[in-house]
Amino acid sequence: MKEIKVGLIGFGTVGKGLAEVLLSQRERLVRRTGMTIRLAGIADHGTAALPERFSDIPLTQDARTLINDPDIDIIVELIGGIEPAKTFVLEAIAHGKHVITANKALLSQEGAEIFAAAAKRGVEVGFEASVGGGIPVIKALKEGLVANRILSIMGIMNGTANYILTRMTDEGMPFAEVLKDAQKLGFAEADPTYDVEGIDTAHKLAILMTMAYGMPITHHEIATEGISRIEPMDIELARELGCRIKLLAISRNHGDHVEARVHPTMVPQGHLLASINGAYNAIHFHGDTVGNVLLYGLGAGSIPTGSAVAADVVDIARNIRCHSIGRVPALSYLPEAMRPRRITPMDELCGPYYFRLTVLDQPGVLATVAGILSKYEISIESVIQKGRKKIGAVAVVIVTHSAKESAVSAALDEINRLASVTAPVVKIRILEEE
Amino acid sequence: MKEIKVGLIGFGTVGKGLAEVLLSQRERLVRRTGMTIRLAGIADHGTAALPERFSDIPLTQDARTLINDPDIDIIVELIGGIEPAKTFVLEAIAHGKHVITANKALLSQEGAEIFAAAAKRGVEVGFEASVGGGIPVIKALKEGLVANRILSIMGIMNGTANYILTRMTDEGMPFAEVLKDAQKLGFAEADPTYDVEGIDTAHKLAILMTMAYGMPITHHEIATEGISRIEPMDIELARELGCRIKLLAISRNHGDHVEARVHPTMVPQGHLLASINGAYNAIHFHGDTVGNVLLYGLGAGSIPTGSAVAADVVDIARNIRCHSIGRVPALSYLPEAMRPRRITPMDELCGPYYFRLTVLDQPGVLATVAGILSKYEISIESVIQKGRKKIGAVAVVIVTHSAKESAVSAALDEINRLASVTAPVVKIRILEEE
Repeated sequence: MKEIKVGLIGFGTVGKGLAEVLLSQRERLVRRTGMTIRLAGIADHGTAALPERFSDIPLTQDARTLINDPDIDIIVELIGGIEPAKTFVLEAIAHGKHVITANKALLSQEGAEIFAAAAKRGVEVGFEASVGGGIPVIKALKEGLVANRILSIMGIMNGTANYILTRMTDEGMPFAEVLKDAQKLGFAEADPTYDVEGIDTAHKLAILMTMAYGMPITHHEIATEGISRIEPMDIELARELGCRIKLLAISRNHGDHVEARVHPTMVPQGHLLASINGAYNAIHFHGDTVGNVLLYGLGAGSIPTGSAVAADVVDIARNIRCHSIGRVPALSYLPEAMRPRRITPMDELCGPYYFRLTVLDQPGVLATVAGILSKYEISIESVIQKGRKKIGAVAVVIVTHSAKESAVSAALDEINRLASVTAPVVKIRILEEE
Repeated sequence: MKEIKVGLIGFGTVGKGLAEVLLSQRERLVRRTGMTIRLAGIADHGTAALPERFSDIPLTQDARTLINDPDIDIIVELIGGIEPAKTFVLEAIAHGKHVITANKALLSQEGAEIFAAAAKRGVEVGFEASVGGGIPVIKALKEGLVANRILSIMGIMNGTANYILTRMTDEGMPFAEVLKDAQKLGFAEADPTYDVEGIDTAHKLAILMTMAYGMPITHHEIATEGISRIEPMDIELARELGCRIKLLAISRNHGDHVEARVHPTMVPQGHLLASINGAYNAIHFHGDTVGNVLLYGLGAGSIPTGSAVAADVVDIARNIRCHSIGRVPALSYLPEAMRPRRITPMDELCGPYYFRLTVLDQPGVLATVAGILSKYEISIESVIQKGRKKIGAVAVVIVTHSAKESAVSAALDEINRLASVTAPVVKIRILEEE
């Protein structure tokens, strides 16, 4: 029976998950592929010994032992971060090895170089686990939706941020408190910046956009705003407005230009994305032929992410056995068919907004604010005035009709300068139904 | 450039959809595959001429013109029904052609013969469009979730039934009236039996179970109950109980035996499946490594289903070009690895139930009913007594804790014989959260 040998670099959360999955599914994979998938070596800097059940797998501290091993077919990089991951991946490719990675930071920043090197050397790069954890979203986009012009991508792509927002919503707790608890429970890392500030979500959106639209893009080009400034009051007001606040990645395809942004968003309760709670992820595509499609599942976690990495291993193993390497282009479009596209500047975007103003409880304030909005052609859909929260100050919530972001910025600059406005206006974009 | 020639048998709703998709995505498919996918012939009994934009495609009344054409690589069967579809598919296979079909009735009944013939002849059988319309559920199950033991399948797999239940729920209309309207609007067929009686859903569940568990099964082995007896009153009572009634396909994998059933089900409002409305479908898998995964999208429709058929065309085209036919086993498991499994008889199933009784408004009736339930060890979770609906008769709703189906049947037989019970008890199963 054909045997495929896998070398694993990085025995952290996902690395352990992959080892567990390959062990528990060994017989099943034989029944499904007719091949044996063998974890032929694990390289990890900080691991002195492997758990008993993996004791037949050679362990090394040096990744190059695996990269240089001529018997190994596939190198799986699960150490994360840019370096030394990038060096290992490029070296593995140079050695003619197929590569699998879950490293969205690496791919969204250095993807161009990695995919070019792999194409030149004729090896595969698998990255199903880089977006949406165990959800088979990369395969769905590249193959299942191949006969679609993707018109939009929307998703909840970070489990930590969604977990925090869900608990803030369900328990009325402030951000900092939930974060601390999430860290204690292992749902958030010691440094949660990438997760809560939307950077991790932007990495993933960049990867999806590259494949959906056939365009090169890095996460640096994606306007990104996190959830750390969301207050329980905004969550409560969202509920009154029939919405839930979610950290969304949003991209719309306008043909010659494409939107790309990550920010907290008011999602109407009827929308499926409003029902995605806890550590779950969901990615929604609108395709010109398929219409709306949504994929839902655990966006992180050792074993679920291991499931996605293992699917890549099987996919590449099948290509090795069938001599069909390069059967599906790594980025869905052929390298020569990729076309750069303009990213719509945030200033040009239009949509409805939620503003929360903290104003002195004086006559005339609302009239002044309304006057400024009107000057910038921002039309008001509704106004809610809440009772006194602080001495002398009241909260006023304004929901607008669709307005241009540049006009909103200018209007809020002006409003923030008013003497009667005692704190910067909180601005949250509202999801427009397609 | 490599050209793949497709012959299409059946120019009905889905056939037209495929033709439209291949036309509108022609340039995109070149950019993604480096191949030209050409619709090289259409066979349709009842079509005298093709629309102008397809006028360069040869039209024939005789399917065998395509089946016998040595230039055609792939035959797409979209006529539906068992015959002559089966004969065409087997003849195409015998001619060494790859086959794609959206025909769930054919596959769930005659699949064993078709897949065996295809394996023997070394050709592919694509059937992405047979379940979940445009949703790439077959590929997700076969490839994305390859490293999973599937523990359960649950889904809303019939858009017509879900459309009817949604309107009954939102508008309080009775079944017959919504059905008539749905037929007028094109959401239901003239003969809606397959859709509303759950048979179409059972076809789809049989296909998914075959692949998920690696076992042969036909839809005849699936206990099936439709929605035609659901009354607005039950929908309203479901709402009071925090549920929505959905026609669900449910299968649980118990190792040596597997559940397989289709019936109206009370779905708690917090469950994602309760939020799937209108003509949408959603399929939920629980895998031992990935955990919960749900796929959502349009389960029917000309162009969305065309998207799924086109994805199969591309998949097979890639295998033709790469000489990798048979790269993924058609049914996910290798033919020799398929293992029959016992289907759990309905009588052995356990779960909570909703009973709606129509009883005379007399003292002692509830005590008698409770006594019978207790005799069969069915324990009551709650009782709701509604006001008089008919002269002298009241509705009593009983929600039970988990009970055995055989006990429930025996108890309801006894209750239905009571003189004070004036109409057969309505029984609806309640979805148990995993």
